Amino acid sequence: MAMKMKAAIFVEPNRIVLGEKPIPDVGPLDALIRITTTTICGTDVHILKGEYPVKSGLTVGHEPVGIIEKLGSAVRGYREGQRVIAGAITPSGHSMACLCGRHSQDGADTPHGFKAMGGWRFGNTLDGAQAEFLLVPDAMANLAAVPQGLTDEQVLMCPDILSTGFAGAESGGIRIGDTVAVFAQGPIGLCATGGARLMGATTIIGVDRVPARLEVARRMGADYVIDARSQDPVQEILRLTEGRGVDVAIEALGSQSTFEAALRSLRPGGTLSSLGVYSEDLRIPVDAFAAGLGDHRICTTLCPGGKERMHRLMSVIRSGRLDTRPLVTHRFTLDRIEEAYDLFSHQRDGVLKVAITP
Amino acid sequence: MAMKMKAAIFVEPNRIVLGEKPIPDVGPLDALIRITTTTICGTDVHILKGEYPVKSGLTVGHEPVGIIEKLGSAVRGYREGQRVIAGAITPSGHSMACLCGRHSQDGADTPHGFKAMGGWRFGNTLDGAQAEFLLVPDAMANLAAVPQGLTDEQVLMCPDILSTGFAGAESGGIRIGDTVAVFAQGPIGLCATGGARLMGATTIIGVDRVPARLEVARRMGADYVIDARSQDPVQEILRLTEGRGVDVAIEALGSQSTFEAALRSLRPGGTLSSLGVYSEDLRIPVDAFAAGLGDHRICTTLCPGGKERMHRLMSVIRSGRLDTRPLVTHRFTLDRIEEAYDLFSHQRDGVLKVAITP
Amino acid sequence: MAMKMKAAIFVEPNRIVLGEKPIPDVGPLDALIRITTTTICGTDVHILKGEYPVKSGLTVGHEPVGIIEKLGSAVRGYREGQRVIAGAITPSGHSMACLCGRHSQDGADTPHGFKAMGGWRFGNTLDGAQAEFLLVPDAMANLAAVPQGLTDEQVLMCPDILSTGFAGAESGGIRIGDTVAVFAQGPIGLCATGGARLMGATTIIGVDRVPARLEVARRMGADYVIDARSQDPVQEILRLTEGRGVDVAIEALGSQSTFEAALRSLRPGGTLSSLGVYSEDLRIPVDAFAAGLGDHRICTTLCPGGKERMHRLMSVIRSGRLDTRPLVTHRFTLDRIEEAYDLFSHQRDGVLKVAITP
Amino acid sequence: MAMKMKAAIFVEPNRIVLGEKPIPDVGPLDALIRITTTTICGTDVHILKGEYPVKSGLTVGHEPVGIIEKLGSAVRGYREGQRVIAGAITPSGHSMACLCGRHSQDGADTPHGFKAMGGWRFGNTLDGAQAEFLLVPDAMANLAAVPQGLTDEQVLMCPDILSTGFAGAESGGIRIGDTVAVFAQGPIGLCATGGARLMGATTIIGVDRVPARLEVARRMGADYVIDARSQDPVQEILRLTEGRGVDVAIEALGSQSTFEAALRSLRPGGTLSSLGVYSEDLRIPVDAFAAGLGDHRICTTLCPGGKERMHRLMSVIRSGRLDTRPLVTHRFTLDRIEEAYDLFSHQRDGVLKVAITP
Repeated sequence: MAMKMKAAIFVEPNRIVLGEKPIPDVGPLDALIRITTTTICGTDVHILKGEYPVKSGLTVGHEPVGIIEKLGSAVRGYREGQRVIAGAITPSGHSMACLCGRHSQDGADTPHGFKAMGGWRFGNTLDGAQAEFLLVPDAMANLAAVPQGLTDEQVLMCPDILSTGFAGAESGGIRIGDTVAVFAQGPIGLCATGGARLMGATTIIGVDRVPARLEVARRMGADYVIDARSQDPVQEILRLTEGRGVDVAIEALGSQSTFEAALRSLRPGGTLSSLGVYSEDLRIPVDAFAAGLGDHRICTTLCPGGKERMHRLMSVIRSGRLDTRPLVTHRFTLDRIEEAYDLFSHQRDGVLKVAITP
Repeated sequence: MAMKMKAAIFVEPNRIVLGEKPIPDVGPLDALIRITTTTICGTDVHILKGEYPVKSGLTVGHEPVGIIEKLGSAVRGYREGQRVIAGAITPSGHSMACLCGRHSQDGADTPHGFKAMGGWRFGNTLDGAQAEFLLVPDAMANLAAVPQGLTDEQVLMCPDILSTGFAGAESGGIRIGDTVAVFAQGPIGLCATGGARLMGATTIIGVDRVPARLEVARRMGADYVIDARSQDPVQEILRLTEGRGVDVAIEALGSQSTFEAALRSLRPGGTLSSLGVYSEDLRIPVDAFAAGLGDHRICTTLCPGGKERMHRLMSVIRSGRLDTRPLVTHRFTLDRIEEAYDLFSHQRDGVLKVAITP
Repeated sequence: MAMKMKAAIFVEPNRIVLGEKPIPDVGPLDALIRITTTTICGTDVHILKGEYPVKSGLTVGHEPVGIIEKLGSAVRGYREGQRVIAGAITPSGHSMACLCGRHSQDGADTPHGFKAMGGWRFGNTLDGAQAEFLLVPDAMANLAAVPQGLTDEQVLMCPDILSTGFAGAESGGIRIGDTVAVFAQGPIGLCATGGARLMGATTIIGVDRVPARLEVARRMGADYVIDARSQDPVQEILRLTEGRGVDVAIEALGSQSTFEAALRSLRPGGTLSSLGVYSEDLRIPVDAFAAGLGDHRICTTLCPGGKERMHRLMSVIRSGRLDTRPLVTHRFTLDRIEEAYDLFSHQRDGVLKVAITP
Repeated sequence: MAMKMKAAIFVEPNRIVLGEKPIPDVGPLDALIRITTTTICGTDVHILKGEYPVKSGLTVGHEPVGIIEKLGSAVRGYREGQRVIAGAITPSGHSMACLCGRHSQDGADTPHGFKAMGGWRFGNTLDGAQAEFLLVPDAMANLAAVPQGLTDEQVLMCPDILSTGFAGAESGGIRIGDTVAVFAQGPIGLCATGGARLMGATTIIGVDRVPARLEVARRMGADYVIDARSQDPVQEILRLTEGRGVDVAIEALGSQSTFEAALRSLRPGGTLSSLGVYSEDLRIPVDAFAAGLGDHRICTTLCPGGKERMHRLMSVIRSGRLDTRPLVTHRFTLDRIEEAYDLFSHQRDGVLKVAITP
């Protein structure tokens, strides 16, 4: 008889409950991880609200820190008992998407190897990380050992938030001396701000409507902050840049208004790097788009995963270049995860990210 | 008293007339070109119809082939009597936009050197090429000698059509073995098709509603053509690619329907390279955009100019890699340019491009 | 008792013999391929001569075309009986080298995942393709189905020669309108010439000392050829480019003299893309290198592998963009492979590539 | 009769003397700058020693900070009295080299617009900055106004040292999380170290033989320093990277031993970014080069110039991201420049850079 474990299970819209599930069997390419810390993502809240559809009965969550409990028979290069993380996105490594560098759009099972968001499997198409145990597919491509001396909370942002936020800066192609605006300073926007700083932007403008988040934005690297409740961000950005606009605008919310403001704050030839998850059609105003003649670039980026990425991100933490611990504002045991969802989904009490410990 | 010349002058919406103007004075950085052949662009029709505003009294046109009549006092490296072309876009070379590689968004006169479409001066902010003489600003950055043995008509597409079309392929980052769809096979789309072929795409799909244009598309390099009157282009592209979608979709018309079809025909992680001039806001359907998580890239490109570009394009012609002469379907003298506008703006008689000779 | 198969085995320097070996067992991630056609590479000749050391007893060869005989238990996405190729380089897909895009320098077994040439396993660290059967490791990352209608000989160059040659053009960053020189027109140089053509170079100069190869160079896309026995290639290239030099020089032999000539033929800011296998230290003349101030780039490229690459290359063949069949000049059965080595290693009888059929 | 000014003049090898020269006439595209601060570069010492040949009578120096005294008749966008810098490299903006993005290899006067080091004119082909006045050619492409609040010494490194050092990091393509070694921590190596930090490298290893320079290296961003007198740098780098090697190695001295050590410290697929000025042929050891199969990249970079670059670099200073003032260790008036050369060329007294004030 299979052993049981606790897991946060999506039942139906507005119901994620703590339930019991069998501890999964380990296939030849898998690894079973005993979760020591995990967290809740804004995407999980979309799932909770029924805005992003997943199958009823699925374990939610895609941000694991844990210990290898059992390795599949074909897995080489790891040992049981090792402390590891895996990315929110778990590319197979062997699909055509992976082999041409588009790991997040992996479609290992499709004839052509491309599937939109196909690399996102935890808490989407496979059982996720808000549980006592997590089965990691294609373990050799995905498990990254945590360097000695780093705590769970220090690396907890690597699987998704830090990878996504930095990717916003990277897809923007930020160069030394660039001017960058980051629209919304939630956890991902804050990491995008940190990424812009890390890549050499010298004027970084953080925009949000929550003063406490703007405070954290400064700690993450913003040179200027704009409170969108009291100031028009586009006007203020044009003022700060003497009418020129920014080289790169990063959208980190997923709304028409931030998308449009990002576009309007760009200089001709600039890049809008979009990280937000949109729930409605987007409109590109023809004037902001210079009628299609402005040499604009709009790019979207799904969180990059895979072990090489995780090692890179943990090296940022280990080197002290950026400290993401200020993002962890609340802590819960797995038993109390329903409370954690309640707090997080209502954005109460200044919450940024919660740490969940089974 | 200044000498006079004939010129096609924008008077008011729906009125471009052949009139007289003084032959311009030559400033220290300028060159005066005696036009031998020029042509009419779709953008000129936008001007004619009042859809793109220019000042009344402006000479229209931005595609010059001619002979140097007089050089400014500070111009070095050329001689009078030389046969030359200049690009539709005439970057100054010395603006900040130019110095960071965004020549088309030049803003030589603005404090920060960026201005949307600022590099487009002929027939937009300066008198244009549909005249007996043309004043070329920043001549040293813009005049390109025509290689011996090439006729006017062979190089007539270089200043705009070929530069723009190729740029659609280049901005798409086409690689050897890519699958590419080109939406609309007007002159620019045809050159984009040729550019995709030249960069190594191995499956090129041309889309249009005019059978004769689809015929030319095959000559320019399309492997497949889709007549959008009888087939749904997106469905047909998915069928041709076995459900995968294209690596790069080039939009070469400037409408919501082609923009949207281009987006829907992309594989995850693909690039929509947009060349069209849009007259209305664009809508990005959230499903086609994978909610912002598909690693999509949308880029717009204004025609690259400058003499280096012109030399590159003329080398394509000289080497026989692509022959743009099939695009010249009609010929007029400058005296009859009003007739030419009438034909071209109504897309009568299978017209692709007209050659105008003063 | 294991079944036996015939295989070309390296015994000691100057001795590759046809012998017998057990047909290999198939591990969970492997696939066993029955070889239908293979070939001999210049690298195999280095092995034969003892210039590149491999273990005695190893089966040689890394260019397989064949049929899937048996799939490992964890392999998904293929079926037995399928006609496939695999690249000379077989990346694991899951190493850190792979996950950062450096598949050819794969080091799946090393702690950090990088090992110089680590992706080259066939006929180097694993038994190779000059045999009746071949065991393909990490099959899901490496097997590529051959499109219907293509013969073995049509795709025989894809695993190595075409992938390497094109990579020389790709690493050079060739753009539309570039001027490119390719030093040496052996099989790889010829494919580099074809790659330069495919990427849009408009002046391609092929250099060799064998007139018959220069003939083939023209068929593969060279606009000019230089016979290095009668002309100084650098002087001739400078003459052809009016003193300017080439944008990209591709080295495809592996000698000091071609390397140096490639460097001397570059324009300032140009790229030397090196494909050759060098057996001695290289010298960079300080004058040709502009004392280190010429914005030169020198890059080396090992053959890219993996199934995505193979599909791309086969699409080039299928689309008719390039025909590599002229490279196959001789045919042998596997039984006569020692003869084939004798012919090929002595470059007799105008041999370019041989087809070997078990 | 022309007014006279003081200037440091190269007379013959080992003789740079303070002499008098006419204040230059201002052509239509020029600007005359009254120098307020300048400095001496290692390249000037090469000139002094006769290792880099310039014409006798030339004013030396290429790092100007000053005030616009007079503008050429065709110069727009500046006013006399403005405080400005210009880069060591003064691209014309209008050459083909400039128009394809290779500004430092400018050849404005050559038919094809490429000339090795052609963008370096001050103190090389034109009179330089170690004088009371400096004539800046192509002023519109080169003058950059100093932001308010920055002192001369704060921006003194921008024209050359900072631009070159950062370019070493930029050409290396450093990414977030990279491991980088910088060979030699003279002024340029120190700025390369700062540039690597600014671009997101998380393990930066500085190498030199002078302990005081290694101290400054830590302040500029090195995580580890290696004293090459007591440790073998390659062995130590391999130890620090657990045998893996670095992603990017920057050479900032110009010797065979540092070049070779840089190559040997690279991981497969890594980049050697070379900044040094070499006076002898370089040797590439075949083993360190993986016989040409290691996917290595070697790139050289000449200091980027032009006003856009200068603005970017001054924004680094203004934003407080990097403080280059620790590099200015000594100060002299122009009258005592011969003393300054004596100190600087003998590397006495811990000198890094000297500030010279007319």
